[in-house]
Amino acid sequence: MGSNSFGNIFKLHSFGESHGEAIGGIIEGFPAGISIDIPMIESELSRRKTNQGLYSSQRKENDNIKILSGIFEGKTIGTPIGFVIENENAKPKDYSKIKDIYRPSHADYTWEQKYGIRDYRGGGRSSARETIVRVVGGALAKQFLSQQGIQITAWVQQIGNEVWENSSIPSFESIEKSILRCPDRKTEISMQQAIERAAAEGDSLGGIIKCSISNVPVGLGEPVFNKLHAALGSAMLGINAVKGFEYGNGFSAASLKGSQNNDEFYIDNDVVKTRTNNSGGIQGGISNGEEIYFRVAFKPVASISIRQQTIDNKGNNVDVEVNGRHDVCVVPRAVPIVESMAAMVIMDFYLMQKINQ
Amino acid sequence: MGSNSFGNIFKLHSFGESHGEAIGGIIEGFPAGISIDIPMIESELSRRKTNQGLYSSQRKENDNIKILSGIFEGKTIGTPIGFVIENENAKPKDYSKIKDIYRPSHADYTWEQKYGIRDYRGGGRSSARETIVRVVGGALAKQFLSQQGIQITAWVQQIGNEVWENSSIPSFESIEKSILRCPDRKTEISMQQAIERAAAEGDSLGGIIKCSISNVPVGLGEPVFNKLHAALGSAMLGINAVKGFEYGNGFSAASLKGSQNNDEFYIDNDVVKTRTNNSGGIQGGISNGEEIYFRVAFKPVASISIRQQTIDNKGNNVDVEVNGRHDVCVVPRAVPIVESMAAMVIMDFYLMQKINQ
Amino acid sequence: MGSNSFGNIFKLHSFGESHGEAIGGIIEGFPAGISIDIPMIESELSRRKTNQGLYSSQRKENDNIKILSGIFEGKTIGTPIGFVIENENAKPKDYSKIKDIYRPSHADYTWEQKYGIRDYRGGGRSSARETIVRVVGGALAKQFLSQQGIQITAWVQQIGNEVWENSSIPSFESIEKSILRCPDRKTEISMQQAIERAAAEGDSLGGIIKCSISNVPVGLGEPVFNKLHAALGSAMLGINAVKGFEYGNGFSAASLKGSQNNDEFYIDNDVVKTRTNNSGGIQGGISNGEEIYFRVAFKPVASISIRQQTIDNKGNNVDVEVNGRHDVCVVPRAVPIVESMAAMVIMDFYLMQKINQ
Amino acid sequence: MGSNSFGNIFKLHSFGESHGEAIGGIIEGFPAGISIDIPMIESELSRRKTNQGLYSSQRKENDNIKILSGIFEGKTIGTPIGFVIENENAKPKDYSKIKDIYRPSHADYTWEQKYGIRDYRGGGRSSARETIVRVVGGALAKQFLSQQGIQITAWVQQIGNEVWENSSIPSFESIEKSILRCPDRKTEISMQQAIERAAAEGDSLGGIIKCSISNVPVGLGEPVFNKLHAALGSAMLGINAVKGFEYGNGFSAASLKGSQNNDEFYIDNDVVKTRTNNSGGIQGGISNGEEIYFRVAFKPVASISIRQQTIDNKGNNVDVEVNGRHDVCVVPRAVPIVESMAAMVIMDFYLMQKINQ
Repeated sequence: MGSNSFGNIFKLHSFGESHGEAIGGIIEGFPAGISIDIPMIESELSRRKTNQGLYSSQRKENDNIKILSGIFEGKTIGTPIGFVIENENAKPKDYSKIKDIYRPSHADYTWEQKYGIRDYRGGGRSSARETIVRVVGGALAKQFLSQQGIQITAWVQQIGNEVWENSSIPSFESIEKSILRCPDRKTEISMQQAIERAAAEGDSLGGIIKCSISNVPVGLGEPVFNKLHAALGSAMLGINAVKGFEYGNGFSAASLKGSQNNDEFYIDNDVVKTRTNNSGGIQGGISNGEEIYFRVAFKPVASISIRQQTIDNKGNNVDVEVNGRHDVCVVPRAVPIVESMAAMVIMDFYLMQKINQ
Repeated sequence: MGSNSFGNIFKLHSFGESHGEAIGGIIEGFPAGISIDIPMIESELSRRKTNQGLYSSQRKENDNIKILSGIFEGKTIGTPIGFVIENENAKPKDYSKIKDIYRPSHADYTWEQKYGIRDYRGGGRSSARETIVRVVGGALAKQFLSQQGIQITAWVQQIGNEVWENSSIPSFESIEKSILRCPDRKTEISMQQAIERAAAEGDSLGGIIKCSISNVPVGLGEPVFNKLHAALGSAMLGINAVKGFEYGNGFSAASLKGSQNNDEFYIDNDVVKTRTNNSGGIQGGISNGEEIYFRVAFKPVASISIRQQTIDNKGNNVDVEVNGRHDVCVVPRAVPIVESMAAMVIMDFYLMQKINQ
Repeated sequence: MGSNSFGNIFKLHSFGESHGEAIGGIIEGFPAGISIDIPMIESELSRRKTNQGLYSSQRKENDNIKILSGIFEGKTIGTPIGFVIENENAKPKDYSKIKDIYRPSHADYTWEQKYGIRDYRGGGRSSARETIVRVVGGALAKQFLSQQGIQITAWVQQIGNEVWENSSIPSFESIEKSILRCPDRKTEISMQQAIERAAAEGDSLGGIIKCSISNVPVGLGEPVFNKLHAALGSAMLGINAVKGFEYGNGFSAASLKGSQNNDEFYIDNDVVKTRTNNSGGIQGGISNGEEIYFRVAFKPVASISIRQQTIDNKGNNVDVEVNGRHDVCVVPRAVPIVESMAAMVIMDFYLMQKINQ
Repeated sequence: MGSNSFGNIFKLHSFGESHGEAIGGIIEGFPAGISIDIPMIESELSRRKTNQGLYSSQRKENDNIKILSGIFEGKTIGTPIGFVIENENAKPKDYSKIKDIYRPSHADYTWEQKYGIRDYRGGGRSSARETIVRVVGGALAKQFLSQQGIQITAWVQQIGNEVWENSSIPSFESIEKSILRCPDRKTEISMQQAIERAAAEGDSLGGIIKCSISNVPVGLGEPVFNKLHAALGSAMLGINAVKGFEYGNGFSAASLKGSQNNDEFYIDNDVVKTRTNNSGGIQGGISNGEEIYFRVAFKPVASISIRQQTIDNKGNNVDVEVNGRHDVCVVPRAVPIVESMAAMVIMDFYLMQKINQ
């Protein structure tokens, strides 16, 4: 039922388990005649696997992408873009200890109940490794969007209790200079210390990513069920570990009055603008030309090396310590994933709007 | 592009402008042989238009539903259920004053930019009147779900700055006894006072609805893109005025450690349970049998009678006062809409899971 | 599973049983700003119910259409077009005699086996009355297409053993002047005599409809699964009683050599043309600008008043005579249905192609 | 717009150009826990590339399939099955001569007009090489169906003017023993002679394939738009070079009377049967438990080495001889493709029907 496909016109179909032969996907609906920069895709993949020192996943993968179709003489030709990334470092034996155990707050138990069978090798398809495929889709979508002048920027706003509040959009360079993708050096240091403390305890941390999209033309989004922010929300909630989504001023709008929350229009040199942007660039489900922005909340990763109580698949109460490679905090690595999902949504809605033109 | 259709197996197709002849819809995929209680649908429609005294919309509609197909001798027969509700009280003349003006934070401007044409009669299709169709779909889905033992309950948790925090699920009766659908009498009084103040100022208020779904079987939801919470989030973000969605402990998970946030499993009389329920009943995108709960943030309605600055469709800066009937706070009326969208999602995923069985 | 919806961008959602309250539908994806001629829709509905004297269905219906949304001040506004046609003359009692009997070559048996329940009133949803909804969709699509210069013409080529072979496209007027929609007077007389003989015997007749579509722009159709002729074929095979579909020279191509069958290109005044048109205007699944044409075979209607052997729903072998109103030959009435389905496919693919532009 | 995806619950997503790096696909919706026989898939792939001596394509490919996901410890696990087949023998230089020329009755011209760009290497995505992906999907679907007792058999009924008429279903062995997949030795010899004559002339031949599906349970198919035969027809018309489709007695039903065409029901040892099977096992769009059968007409392949008139992409009238490897008659090789498309349709509808159970 479409659980591995994303999008309406621009579509990504995804396959691959974290410890299978390979992961990959097919991108459909990409317009013909667009020049594609392959190194940019590789660079996006490498952003996703950023090494954060000893606090991140130990798995070393080159994540070499092979594009198998859809691009000819450097340009898209309107055909589906098939691609594959091999799993170089899959070690199923690592997981023999947890083969029969359901790890707390993982997908182990629900998956086995749903399908009657379980791929116990590192989470199988529920692993975050699957997001590689999304980053490929996002990299291609970003290339298309940037040719239309549309820019997507995401950064880490919170890790644990450390929060960076800012009102302007940081530059891509300032974000990428930061190992935690939080461009404020002072907050970043506090975040690093929190991660070090959690690592020492064998624990994990969550956080919040903020994303901004600028230069989106007016008119993207559908007015009833497929509102632009609903599509963005669905895309973000489809990322592993995400617990919440808000756009514009979000939850805080609940305690405002209409007169405080409304964005008044005005004309500035023949351009329609709003004085405030509590709407986050979307009104009635349709983009209004202002900056689109939203926030995404991530829970702490469920894999911790602290002993926990759980059950096995025979119905016994047991203890479990999840050893092996896992991140203390995935939030910095999730930044390109958030951007990628946003890029695919915007490109999809951009193409959809061509039907109305 | 599907902007007026909702669902995968259980589908709702919706039509109708707020000031057109009628609104209505088609429900597809409803299983055959299910007894349908028509008065229950009418009662749900009347919950949606609850009169909140002088603080709510003045529009008086009977919202009489005519079911035109799909039910024969009291039972569904597997065919699409077509239904129509006439717009009795449409007065297009009411809107002549704002015909050429884009109201701040409404869909007026974005709609006209998108389609090149505008239905200026009360928001046309962007009006909340369209949600009647969703309540019909929800009423039918609730009847199906309640035959499977699944119960959906929603209530008002916040209006303006007045918040009711509670840990257990209030009874349907206690919620419906409250004119604001907040079962805590003390909070309700504060909320009413806040609404009265806003009404006096010609202003409006937002709020938060919490929704709980119990007895959902294990296994609903898809593991990658169509996660159960992503579908719930998309459904909620598709309701007018919604600005945010979180499930389980939501945004607050971002500042917890894994050891605090994880839900440990245990066996209780051969039943698998979790000691905490920060996951909100969903793990890896799939229901785990625990209570599903989530929160939905509503902005204050954009229609206020306070004078605001805006523009007209000739590009002039103008002032506007939005007179006529509109709610001070729609949040209590949105409770059955939240329930309805949740019911349609759960029924859809319930039917989808039959394919795996 | 979409069994009542048709199309990708231009979509028709259909509801209604032949003896329920009403039938109707929703058209989604119709572009905004298009002027709509309502009397033309009514005229198309009346073409579908053409009285063929005593040889056709006795059911008298006015088939008055009520358009409930989507059109404002004479123009489409981009919102779904909801419409309803009441069933004026439904008499469930007519069918009490066949309530428990499965009529040969009807949908009675398969429907009940599929859904576990049966609407025995005149075939319920399997009745050809459902095609009214398609004619409405087709009438709207034709209006859009004719504004792009695209013309759709269908006529009766065969009834029983009487065949009219012609190489050019007859005019709409010459077809509509013929009660059997066969513009060749001599063949028409033979067809009428065949119908009279079959009527006298209580029997029924099948036939073949040919359809031609001219001025379709180059480039409609998808190259792999959604080929333009596959979509046309699927649409035609979705009409009741259709047994076969061929486009271009169809089945006869099987016995030709490539050198006989290939359509050579040439340039005529800067316009690309083909010398022959065995391809029927479609090459590699994509329109090439030549006339599109295809043929659709209809079986004789299953309802005959000759006594037949069959079974009842208790598993007894019984006899049945299907009395009451039914056509001797539906083929002439199916002409506007064939045109309508073709119009909806072409419009859908026309809109789809806008994404590539 | 879904042009590279097939199916509703069981889905095949396809990618790959004939002369690109590789072709492949993703199968979604395959139930978990099914044992998969990989050599059977390889054997189906080899059926598709059967060498017919000098009369068939000269391209030698091993068509080695790599399955990259979805199967673990010999069984499906409910995740998408990704697979890749490398193009070993792609020689883009072969095609430099026709780079700027539109071959008659090929997709060259329409493709370039649609997308504004052309992959001139052997037809790119319009090449029949793409059907490898369908054969993989079909092989997996056949394995699932055969576990439910459902059997699919196809054979060559006609090549050029040589026709084999038979009333019973030939055995798989008798078909596969025949190099032309026509189990009647006498007809096969005539067909071979016709092919030899065409080969000598540099010409090509078309033909007809008949397909039979037995043991399909009652109840598959949707009653309105997604009729089982409409889905089969759409699938067949989606195969390269197909010009027509008919099921049951097909076009010949057009000249029968209802009393001749109707299939009378009777009870035989508590089993519902029909005395004749003009319906081809489908009534009202839904399977009735009898044998499903249909016929598919193929035009002669467009690539011939006889000189033809055509145009180039500068708008000049030119001559063309299409040299290089191509089949004289593809019909025998299309047999497993017809079976594969049929298998995917039946499996898809089998899974869809689970929702009604």
